[in-house]
Amino acid sequence: MYQKGMISFAGGLPHPSVFPFHNIAVSAFPANTVIDPAAPQPPAESVEYAIQRELTPSTSYSIQQGLQYMPSTGMQQLLGFLRAMTERMWKPAYADWEVMANSGSTAAWSLITQLLLERGDYILTESMIFSTSQAVFIPMGIKAVPIASDGEGMRADALEEALANWDESKGRRPRVMYLVPVGQNPLGTTMQLERRKDIYEVAVKYDVIIVEDDPYTMLEFPEYKAGQPSTGPDPDVDVDAFLARKSPSFLTIDYQGRVIRMDTFSKVLAPGSRLGWFTMNKMFSERVLRATEVQANGPSGFSQIIVGQLLEQWGLDGFLKWQVNMCEQYRVRRDWMLDAIYNEFDVVPAEETDVEGAIGQVVYPKGQAHTGPALMSFLPPVGGMFIWIKAYWRTHPKYAAFAAGRETPENDFEEIFWKTLIANDVLLTPGWYHDPYQGDDVHAVEEAGAGHYRLAYSFEPKEVMDEGVRRMAKVFVDEWTGN
Amino acid sequence: MYQKGMISFAGGLPHPSVFPFHNIAVSAFPANTVIDPAAPQPPAESVEYAIQRELTPSTSYSIQQGLQYMPSTGMQQLLGFLRAMTERMWKPAYADWEVMANSGSTAAWSLITQLLLERGDYILTESMIFSTSQAVFIPMGIKAVPIASDGEGMRADALEEALANWDESKGRRPRVMYLVPVGQNPLGTTMQLERRKDIYEVAVKYDVIIVEDDPYTMLEFPEYKAGQPSTGPDPDVDVDAFLARKSPSFLTIDYQGRVIRMDTFSKVLAPGSRLGWFTMNKMFSERVLRATEVQANGPSGFSQIIVGQLLEQWGLDGFLKWQVNMCEQYRVRRDWMLDAIYNEFDVVPAEETDVEGAIGQVVYPKGQAHTGPALMSFLPPVGGMFIWIKAYWRTHPKYAAFAAGRETPENDFEEIFWKTLIANDVLLTPGWYHDPYQGDDVHAVEEAGAGHYRLAYSFEPKEVMDEGVRRMAKVFVDEWTGN
Repeated sequence: MYQKGMISFAGGLPHPSVFPFHNIAVSAFPANTVIDPAAPQPPAESVEYAIQRELTPSTSYSIQQGLQYMPSTGMQQLLGFLRAMTERMWKPAYADWEVMANSGSTAAWSLITQLLLERGDYILTESMIFSTSQAVFIPMGIKAVPIASDGEGMRADALEEALANWDESKGRRPRVMYLVPVGQNPLGTTMQLERRKDIYEVAVKYDVIIVEDDPYTMLEFPEYKAGQPSTGPDPDVDVDAFLARKSPSFLTIDYQGRVIRMDTFSKVLAPGSRLGWFTMNKMFSERVLRATEVQANGPSGFSQIIVGQLLEQWGLDGFLKWQVNMCEQYRVRRDWMLDAIYNEFDVVPAEETDVEGAIGQVVYPKGQAHTGPALMSFLPPVGGMFIWIKAYWRTHPKYAAFAAGRETPENDFEEIFWKTLIANDVLLTPGWYHDPYQGDDVHAVEEAGAGHYRLAYSFEPKEVMDEGVRRMAKVFVDEWTGN
Repeated sequence: MYQKGMISFAGGLPHPSVFPFHNIAVSAFPANTVIDPAAPQPPAESVEYAIQRELTPSTSYSIQQGLQYMPSTGMQQLLGFLRAMTERMWKPAYADWEVMANSGSTAAWSLITQLLLERGDYILTESMIFSTSQAVFIPMGIKAVPIASDGEGMRADALEEALANWDESKGRRPRVMYLVPVGQNPLGTTMQLERRKDIYEVAVKYDVIIVEDDPYTMLEFPEYKAGQPSTGPDPDVDVDAFLARKSPSFLTIDYQGRVIRMDTFSKVLAPGSRLGWFTMNKMFSERVLRATEVQANGPSGFSQIIVGQLLEQWGLDGFLKWQVNMCEQYRVRRDWMLDAIYNEFDVVPAEETDVEGAIGQVVYPKGQAHTGPALMSFLPPVGGMFIWIKAYWRTHPKYAAFAAGRETPENDFEEIFWKTLIANDVLLTPGWYHDPYQGDDVHAVEEAGAGHYRLAYSFEPKEVMDEGVRRMAKVFVDEWTGN
């Protein structure tokens, strides 16, 4: 409550004179830095800035403001930057959208689940889900309704079918959908514009809120070209060309304001920032703000002033260029992992094989394309950090005998083979880790006689990827061909 | 999962080579800084430290570690410091307690409410509660059971009575207690050792978990001495003497491990750190960690490395000295506010008056001690940031007529008088803002013919406090004596 001349004893703020920092000086990378993933070194150049107790002519952030209690929306300077970026990148389809900072997408999604879901509810998910994303709602008594995916993620026809034929005796029809549209974790799928429109229209028809969790949005690559020499990061990718080719956000087509979008700095700056942001309509943002006030009190001020001022130093064009360079980083790493797979196996486009239900590429032992057993299939990802492989237990010589009389032989075999890989010093994430939770009594099997593993290409050096895939290949070939 | 020689594709970490920071250099205040609240200026001296990409011989934190995904416990270096401080300050009564970082006490308490409380539950609170602390549990369908307070906060006899006579038809007996034992917000009460023991034994008897939210723990002052000349901050308060005189934590007497303690850097470093910590037994900490992993993923890495390294630079003795100096800061501000009240009113110890139910000091118009109307009473706080005043509507000349036929005249009058104060340019926090929520149909009146306001002395300069209290005094005297 403000009125001119008022003396307020109502606040209770600590006095900023005792925030014990004179100055926080940051030496950061220039926005146009290109790191060579093959020999990563910090650049020789730097961008220097200092956040002082008071605002200075060259800074938008101060210690006294940034370290005080503040609105749970996050700082206005930061929100202004994010609004401008949202406008540039997505051109949302309605006018009065809001941007609000949060403490990263884990915290953001936890808050949204609490606001939108109630005990006994169902939530629409993709056919596989990031385990942490569901670990937050399972204890709340929420179950997933996994919708079948293809190479672009959730299928609109399967979504329509699930909603049209909803059995109300199970509980009320799902009103919330959770999607990771770019580089889906774990599926590695990326959803293009037409699919998004189809999904959106089903959401309109059945009044479903779409939560678009998009941490990998800027890590959307060109397609992998098998057999071409691998190249390092391209320093000359044009930002506008990048944005023109990349899939849009659901915000771009959200004429009804039914999308809650979650972005994060975790993948393009650093996870330790614990800083992300929502974009959503005012009806949602008012409720999210109220919940944030009592559940978090906003993100770290240190994170906001250090990241916020970096964005000011770089400018919007600079930050977009930085992100496009990040994309090239992970594009190169994706290529390394796929190169290794193509080197160690024979890889054939699924449509040239007779493997039922395969999408993307089918993998045979080296030199045995079409003639040997189909070991697995996978979709070469055009976004994110993961390759999702489907392993064909049904072509394994011992699987038929193994499966006889078992209730969930696919899951059992997946675990056994996972341990075989571990015994051979290569660790993957098993598929069951990403199975959407449908109740304690439901053991989902996505495809008869098949299992899944997730491979991350975000972290290991090329030589390690090569060696890891070599180990995988040896285990697969030994197991399947009995050598 | 770790084994020697393993290659892991299971992780999915972003590559730290692309965290775009060379160096974060901090210029901080020396630990023994004494700020003069009357003319607050940063000290001329500084403590300098720099967090670099890799660890250096002089730092315990690095950018590559601090900005990566990390265990949701917080960083081990920070936890080590906090463990040592806990041992030094509280000497917990059992051996295997755990310390775990969190994103500040708002987030911490939100998480605890979700873990310990279920829809329909009741929670034991003090007679008044910090509004944000209950705003998080009200929407969960939880109601408060306020326990009568005296000058030390919650009364053990009233607690025993509430639990012994619990009406199971309302719901199950409360199993969780929420307390702010030092400088209670809004009551300004501080609980000494004997009271804590009494409360603890009732908790043992009825198997109640005590959540000790203690943000003001280091702001525990010596008693206010009326009529003595006000003094500036004492630079020579000895840390050990301070700790010896201050009230202990419930941890000190918690031989059963039923206390969940919440500390925060908000009041002694800066709220913008969004950094605090739990101390609790392993049974609790395992569950809290699991919940944190899916709800927050730990506190900001920027906060942890900047605060953590500051603590390393200062050392434990230094940080304790800093906090004792903080205590002196707020002791001086407390004195300013009380000086102003003593100057503008006649203030008489409650036991020398016949005002029923008054604790602490009774306030009369200037020059009318005992002879004029008792306007209000208050407890001079020995901790925290707030003075809680009880205003005596029943001595107001128009109150009897006002109250006739009204259901909640105390609350109505409180709001009207609050607006009268605002019209005279002084803003207090009204008592109803802190009423524990007992259901939509319950309008609590703590004392017939009385209302409450909270005054914060943490922020305004002395001259503003003087002027604000002068305005208050004029409004009170005009209203009560019709001048």
